Amino acid sequence: EEDLVSTAMAETHLAKPRLQGELQRTVNQTKLFAELIRNGSWVNAIIDTSNDERQSPKPDIRQMQIPLGVVGVFGASNFPFAYSVAGGDSISALAAGCPVVYKLNPGHPETSKKVAAIMANVTAEFDLPKGVFTMLQGQDYDTGNKLVTHPLIKAVGFTGSFKGGKALYDAAVKRDEPIPFYAEMGSVNPVFILPQMLKQKTAELAEALVTSNQASLGQFCTNPGVMVMQKSEEQKHFGDHFNELLRKNSSGKMLAKNISNNYIKGIEELKKMGAVEIGTGTGEKGELYSTPEMLGTDANAVLNNPALLHEVFGPGSLHVAAQNKEQLLNVASHLEGQLTVTVWATDDDMKDYGELLDIIVQKAGRIIFNGVPTGVEVTAAMVHGGPFPATTDSRSTSVGTNAIYRFTRPVCFQNFPDHLLPAALQNNNPLNIYRNVNGDYTMNSIQ
Amino acid sequence: EEDLVSTAMAETHLAKPRLQGELQRTVNQTKLFAELIRNGSWVNAIIDTSNDERQSPKPDIRQMQIPLGVVGVFGASNFPFAYSVAGGDSISALAAGCPVVYKLNPGHPETSKKVAAIMANVTAEFDLPKGVFTMLQGQDYDTGNKLVTHPLIKAVGFTGSFKGGKALYDAAVKRDEPIPFYAEMGSVNPVFILPQMLKQKTAELAEALVTSNQASLGQFCTNPGVMVMQKSEEQKHFGDHFNELLRKNSSGKMLAKNISNNYIKGIEELKKMGAVEIGTGTGEKGELYSTPEMLGTDANAVLNNPALLHEVFGPGSLHVAAQNKEQLLNVASHLEGQLTVTVWATDDDMKDYGELLDIIVQKAGRIIFNGVPTGVEVTAAMVHGGPFPATTDSRSTSVGTNAIYRFTRPVCFQNFPDHLLPAALQNNNPLNIYRNVNGDYTMNSIQ
Repeated sequence: EEDLVSTAMAETHLAKPRLQGELQRTVNQTKLFAELIRNGSWVNAIIDTSNDERQSPKPDIRQMQIPLGVVGVFGASNFPFAYSVAGGDSISALAAGCPVVYKLNPGHPETSKKVAAIMANVTAEFDLPKGVFTMLQGQDYDTGNKLVTHPLIKAVGFTGSFKGGKALYDAAVKRDEPIPFYAEMGSVNPVFILPQMLKQKTAELAEALVTSNQASLGQFCTNPGVMVMQKSEEQKHFGDHFNELLRKNSSGKMLAKNISNNYIKGIEELKKMGAVEIGTGTGEKGELYSTPEMLGTDANAVLNNPALLHEVFGPGSLHVAAQNKEQLLNVASHLEGQLTVTVWATDDDMKDYGELLDIIVQKAGRIIFNGVPTGVEVTAAMVHGGPFPATTDSRSTSVGTNAIYRFTRPVCFQNFPDHLLPAALQNNNPLNIYRNVNGDYTMNSIQ
Repeated sequence: EEDLVSTAMAETHLAKPRLQGELQRTVNQTKLFAELIRNGSWVNAIIDTSNDERQSPKPDIRQMQIPLGVVGVFGASNFPFAYSVAGGDSISALAAGCPVVYKLNPGHPETSKKVAAIMANVTAEFDLPKGVFTMLQGQDYDTGNKLVTHPLIKAVGFTGSFKGGKALYDAAVKRDEPIPFYAEMGSVNPVFILPQMLKQKTAELAEALVTSNQASLGQFCTNPGVMVMQKSEEQKHFGDHFNELLRKNSSGKMLAKNISNNYIKGIEELKKMGAVEIGTGTGEKGELYSTPEMLGTDANAVLNNPALLHEVFGPGSLHVAAQNKEQLLNVASHLEGQLTVTVWATDDDMKDYGELLDIIVQKAGRIIFNGVPTGVEVTAAMVHGGPFPATTDSRSTSVGTNAIYRFTRPVCFQNFPDHLLPAALQNNNPLNIYRNVNGDYTMNSIQ
């Protein structure tokens, strides 16, 4: 483990405690999926028993989820453990019963090889078929494209940039046999701070949001990159305090040179579109290094040019000032699909701004109230997903137990003798799982 | 109702009892979805309550399904009621909370207009927003293409030919914002008859399968179009009896001229590929009319030329003779995705042919044992779907209550005060629905 963490540190420049935490999370999420399949109810057994007395006799029909087939996985550069070789995509696909072909991420090849070696050991130790997990070592786009278009691949999980994800999505749907392609791409994770709350907690909010925005140099897919407030004295104080705190956040080494270059370029583009620098961090500059940046603009500019709300991956943020409530709601209405949207509000705020919730529910997979979007809980209720372009399939999540359903499909058995049915569907419920039997959720046997 | 049925009879040439039954089914499936949403548990509420005592405090997260947005629907020519204006796609989308824009099917415009008028009356009577249901009267491909590519359309349900479905699928995934496109296209619904069963029930099997194959002139998506058996005396008897029964099935008017032309052309193409006519029905010929056809080939031919297994929509069937068990299994392995696969077998047969089930489960959405594929039960456990090219999305079903999930996505609420949550997720469970609360299915309140 020490070895894995130090290898990942060298390759990704992420801090040791962060990587140790991520490794632990990776182990925990693997255990969660192990528990899910040991429990067994995840197959969503639905049983409608026969009725011979109906005018046209009703047949016995029993449904469950089965694996789709071989799954291709593209890991993330910013999560060398939790979203890479043995990360959430691979583990949820394996849990579903799908063999996995993983394409190495060029951001951390040595870490990946070490984790792949562990996967090979586990495969050998438990005498699993060798093909259950394979890692492709090609690092170029062509290797990825070949993986996505291989006839035996039946679904793909991807975490990365919009550009990369969309290109591979296009390849997946153009195949002779189109396949599901789950790409988790970009998100600016807007934060709306409503007036009363802003007044009450100006300083605390600035602290919470700087911390969330600067964690791991902003290299999280749920990094809060856009803050929206109405113009006011408190909004000015919030900005000043945010800037003050930012100055304590020095620059640092990003994951890779191209990511650092894209960050610098992205900030420049925002400035060209009229965003103004209102604060920066401090510290060393140079190749790989990026400095925290705080830009400001007003709501009109954003409404006129939605490109201002495109993601700039890294430790930056865009602060949007709205003239009034209508403009703030208008900004919300014009958002593209997001992984998360956050609202900070008091009860009084919500009496005036109820509409805001109706709008943002249409825009994201997760809505956070008086909290920060970073920190994605791995749990049954989590939705780490959202409308395009945040992902290519808003019906799915890539974190949490429901991630398994990206790699399954339903099949039903009609009029089968009990002993020929899969165990999950047999009368006496040998797996002791929850099943929907004629409309009731039960573990009972069928008489 | 009389008027609807007689209008549909004139437009589709389907028989009166068939259309009366279909109309009743349409009403029943609408009631089933009404019951589903009245019950409320379909939103799949998942609640993971907070835990402040964990080292990093666990937030409260609550998930449910919400509607995707406006849904486009393309009706089927062979189901003027159950898969058209107020058919399964429209009703399941409306049940999900999605407004529907329906494109009229050119096969039954007058029937469609009458059903649309009923929809308009209902909308007015219950004071629903006018846009909740709209019918486009354009009958050409361009109208359909515009519907699929309109930015406000967020998902599409389609039932029809492979050609039409695939073209519109391509348009849907090429949009700036790709959307889910659910096309139910073609299927030959293969039937495997194993040796012992064939010996025991030669005549009954021929009767059951002719009836299923000739129902509504074979114009069902689950029509059993391919029968696979091993060469034997009984197989010969089966064929002779099938032919004998076929002769009692006279020709009839198909749904439309292009469908009749395609049927005739399709049978000719099968013959060009080496299939031999081994039986035909009798009766009137001419424009619109099609005669029942029974073709034969051997497994080798099918294995060498999979195009022999492409669907010919209408009252035809292809009988495939395998030399031995291996060939029969080989034919199964080479099947494309199907809506259904059927097996006729005795217990003894299954001791020898267990492998067959493993193969066909990979090929279809529904597996039928000792029954016929026609007759699609509208129920919770039904899967009317299957791997490509039977549909464009094997993860979905277009019949049964789960059809609603084609038009929804999950969203989760993190750290929300109880009164701001949707009713389905509030502590005291005001809707009295089944929910997954910390891993248990329960209707209990949360303390």
